[in-house]
Amino acid sequence: MDEKTVAENGYSRRSFLADSGKVIAGAAVASSLLTGQAKEAKAYPYSTGYKYTKLDPKEVGRITYENYFKRWCASSIVAGFVEPLRKKVGGLWKSYPIDAMRWAHGGLAGWGATCGTLNGAGAVIGLVTNNTDTAEEMVNDLAFYYSYTELPSYAPAKIIKAKIHNMTLAGTIICHISVGRWMRSEDVSFLSDARAERCARMAANIAMETAGMLNDWSDGKYKPKHKLLFNLAANGITSQNNCMDCHGQNVPGVETYSTLKK
Amino acid sequence: MDEKTVAENGYSRRSFLADSGKVIAGAAVASSLLTGQAKEAKAYPYSTGYKYTKLDPKEVGRITYENYFKRWCASSIVAGFVEPLRKKVGGLWKSYPIDAMRWAHGGLAGWGATCGTLNGAGAVIGLVTNNTDTAEEMVNDLAFYYSYTELPSYAPAKIIKAKIHNMTLAGTIICHISVGRWMRSEDVSFLSDARAERCARMAANIAMETAGMLNDWSDGKYKPKHKLLFNLAANGITSQNNCMDCHGQNVPGVETYSTLKK
Repeated sequence: MDEKTVAENGYSRRSFLADSGKVIAGAAVASSLLTGQAKEAKAYPYSTGYKYTKLDPKEVGRITYENYFKRWCASSIVAGFVEPLRKKVGGLWKSYPIDAMRWAHGGLAGWGATCGTLNGAGAVIGLVTNNTDTAEEMVNDLAFYYSYTELPSYAPAKIIKAKIHNMTLAGTIICHISVGRWMRSEDVSFLSDARAERCARMAANIAMETAGMLNDWSDGKYKPKHKLLFNLAANGITSQNNCMDCHGQNVPGVETYSTLKK
Repeated sequence: MDEKTVAENGYSRRSFLADSGKVIAGAAVASSLLTGQAKEAKAYPYSTGYKYTKLDPKEVGRITYENYFKRWCASSIVAGFVEPLRKKVGGLWKSYPIDAMRWAHGGLAGWGATCGTLNGAGAVIGLVTNNTDTAEEMVNDLAFYYSYTELPSYAPAKIIKAKIHNMTLAGTIICHISVGRWMRSEDVSFLSDARAERCARMAANIAMETAGMLNDWSDGKYKPKHKLLFNLAANGITSQNNCMDCHGQNVPGVETYSTLKK
C-alpha cells in the first residue's frame, strides 16, 4: 500500500485537532515508556582534552560571519570558536581541522536537511562538554532558538555581501524550509548575494548563542531551557513541532506508530 | 500572505509534471549560475593530523552495531572507526572523544531531521580526508546510498535486541520519514526493541559503506558516484529528490525562488 493509498483510505490518519484527547492519552503513555527506555540510555560522562575558556560572543560571531563566504555555515562556526581557542587555549584545538565539518553546509552537501549551523555548533559543543546530556541539552536549546527566534538579527560592523531587510521565524531546523521562508520574505533566489548574506548572519547568530551557553557552562551556571526528547514523547516518533508543514491537514495521530501497539 | 493563502491562490505553485519544460530551462540557468558561484567557493585542500589506515568494513560494522545500544546512531559509527584507529594508528585518534557527536542521534537530539548516521560518518570523513570536495563527495555518495538502497541489510552474527523482518527504501536522509517508513513496514512503534535493532543495523550499513569509500580513497582510487549540488541546480534551492513527500501534488516550480528573478 503506497503512501497516497494510505492517505485516501484514511488508515490511521485523521485531523490532529478533531481527536486531541487520544493524542494526549497517547503522549502520556509514550512519555511513561520513554522514561523506561531512558534508564537504559542514561546520560554518562566522557573525557575530553578539548579545554574551553570563555570567549567574547561578539568576536565569535564576527569570525563566523567573515568565514562564511569561504567555509559556509557549519565550518564558519567551527572557525568562530577554534581560531580564538587556538590562541587562548592551544592544545588539541591546534590539531582540529576547521574544515572537518564543511560538508554539512546546505543541510548536508546541499540536501537541505538539518541546517549546517547546528552541525557546526554541535561539533564544538560535543568536543567541549563532558557529559552526553549536557551536550544534547545545549544542542536542543539551540534547535529551539534557531526555530523560534526571528533571525538573522546579527548586524555586521562591515557588510560583506549585501544589505538585507528581513528576519523570519524558521519554525524548523530544516535548511530547505528555513531558507525558503526567508527567500520568500526577501523575494530573492537561493544563488543571490542576499541569501548568502542571510546565511552568514544566521551562522553568526547561532555561534553567538552557542558561545553564551558555553560561557555559562564554563561558569557552572548553564541550565537547559527546554526538556530533552519532548517531541518524541508528544508525537511517538522523532519529530519537530511543525507537523502541518509537510502533513497539511492530515497529521497522523500518535497512535499511528504508537507505543500502545507493541 | 501565509503559506495556505499562497497555496490557495496558486501563486507560483503548479503541478511538477504539467510544466516540466520550464523546470528544465530553470535548471539549466541555475546550473550555469551555480558554476559561477562555485568559482568563489571552490574546493581547497586542508591539513589534518588524523591519519587513516585501511580498516576491515565488517569489523567497523560490528563495532558500530554493538555500540548503538549505548551510543545511538551518530557516535556508534564514530566508535566503529575510532576504536580500531586508536589501536592501528594511535596519534590524534586517542584524543578524539567518541561521544562528541552523540547529540546528533534521532535527527539531532530527537528532532527527526538528518539521520545521525550521516553526521557520525561525516565527522569521521571530515577528519580523515584533506580536501573539502573529497569530504563532500563522500558524504553526498553516502546520502544517495542511504536514500536509495533497501536497508538495513546488515545481518549481525549475534542479534542483540530483536529479530526484524523488513528493509525499506528511505527516499530521503530525514530520520522522521526514514524511520517512519520502516516502522509502518514492520508494524512497530518507535520505542520498540525492533526499531532500535533496525537503527543499529542501519548504522552498521552506513559505517561499512563509509569504510569502503575511505579504503578506496586510501588506495588512491576513490571516485565519486554522484555529482555534487545537483539538487540545488535542479530545484533552485537546497533540497532532496522527494519533493512530493511534503508538497504533495503542489510542488513549487524552480522559478518560485528562481535564479531568473534577481
